[in-house]
Amino acid sequence: MLAPSFDPGFRDDLDRLFRWRRDVRHFLPRALPEGALDSLLDTANRAPSVGLSQPWRFVLVDAPPARAAIQAEFLRCNADALAAQSEDRAANYARLKLAALHEAPCQIAVFVDPDPVQGHGLGRLTMPETIGYSAVMAIHTLWLAACAAGLGLGWVSILDPDRVRAALDVSRDWRLVGYLCLGYPAMDADTPELEREGWDHRRPPAIVQR
Amino acid sequence: MLAPSFDPGFRDDLDRLFRWRRDVRHFLPRALPEGALDSLLDTANRAPSVGLSQPWRFVLVDAPPARAAIQAEFLRCNADALAAQSEDRAANYARLKLAALHEAPCQIAVFVDPDPVQGHGLGRLTMPETIGYSAVMAIHTLWLAACAAGLGLGWVSILDPDRVRAALDVSRDWRLVGYLCLGYPAMDADTPELEREGWDHRRPPAIVQR
Repeated sequence: MLAPSFDPGFRDDLDRLFRWRRDVRHFLPRALPEGALDSLLDTANRAPSVGLSQPWRFVLVDAPPARAAIQAEFLRCNADALAAQSEDRAANYARLKLAALHEAPCQIAVFVDPDPVQGHGLGRLTMPETIGYSAVMAIHTLWLAACAAGLGLGWVSILDPDRVRAALDVSRDWRLVGYLCLGYPAMDADTPELEREGWDHRRPPAIVQR
Repeated sequence: MLAPSFDPGFRDDLDRLFRWRRDVRHFLPRALPEGALDSLLDTANRAPSVGLSQPWRFVLVDAPPARAAIQAEFLRCNADALAAQSEDRAANYARLKLAALHEAPCQIAVFVDPDPVQGHGLGRLTMPETIGYSAVMAIHTLWLAACAAGLGLGWVSILDPDRVRAALDVSRDWRLVGYLCLGYPAMDADTPELEREGWDHRRPPAIVQR
């Protein structure tokens, strides 16, 4: 099989994809197209994984009681995070919209199996954290593919991983990596929402020579 | 600014990129084009990061003594990993080529600052591991952009993170996320090398409903 070569037009579009991929917290009330989610999960499943372990576990959260439990958990953790803010940042923090758990039509909890048989442990003896890193790359793959399909994704991390695992009643061995909101974005931007809201701004890359 | 829309041709090419992106362990003895590395690091710097923290720190490892130290560290850790294999897998493990530290023209140690000022801690109170996850997404962004440019990347994790940090004499607070080999790949494949070598094979995605 011949290797593909990617032309300059593709590379320009890929660059636009990296520039416009946002953490989305505002969704339209519109369902995903038929088959879109399965296709995105198949794509995510082709992400790199340490030792070819494919340790990601996708939990599709649809049932209203499960969604309500996640929403309550977010509100609890976000109140704690607000209380932990310094006096000069608390008002800004309180204004931020950091999740879209009420409106996102599709929600996926991504877990990692921290010690899967698949891959036979290759590559993670000295850096066991690479198993979680593999699940992160599956999420990032899904994120980019979603954006290319005109969809938006928001990664919610303001959750207690153990309580999410318990609420969703999955294996006690699994660890939560990220909780994803997916749907049609209500708006597009090439600037992060946290930058538009004055929380912080992007800097050039930090590079050291050795 | 108008949001881009990505046409079906781009989405097909993106799918090919995900299919053909490999962990590369065989490189040609050919330098990267002028400016390519800076461009790739700029692209990686646009990866998602928790709270807009951009916690990745890129260390370009060029000096022969530094490269020799990393190579020695890999050989030591890989010998330990071989010794830890079960009797029935040790011969297969010993045959695998798991790094290209001798031949890769460009080598980058990616660290994370686990508690940067930038981002003001947003989003990582309950899941501090998301700071390392951000650096993982910078690596994955660099990986995909490299592949689109006809380059290959190999992620070496068979290293002791503390010893790599000490060998490269960077801040004691930084943690190694991955050590990257970058260059022109000596071959292309749409099948992972670990699958071709009979180590393991890919499975369909693991999906649970809740």
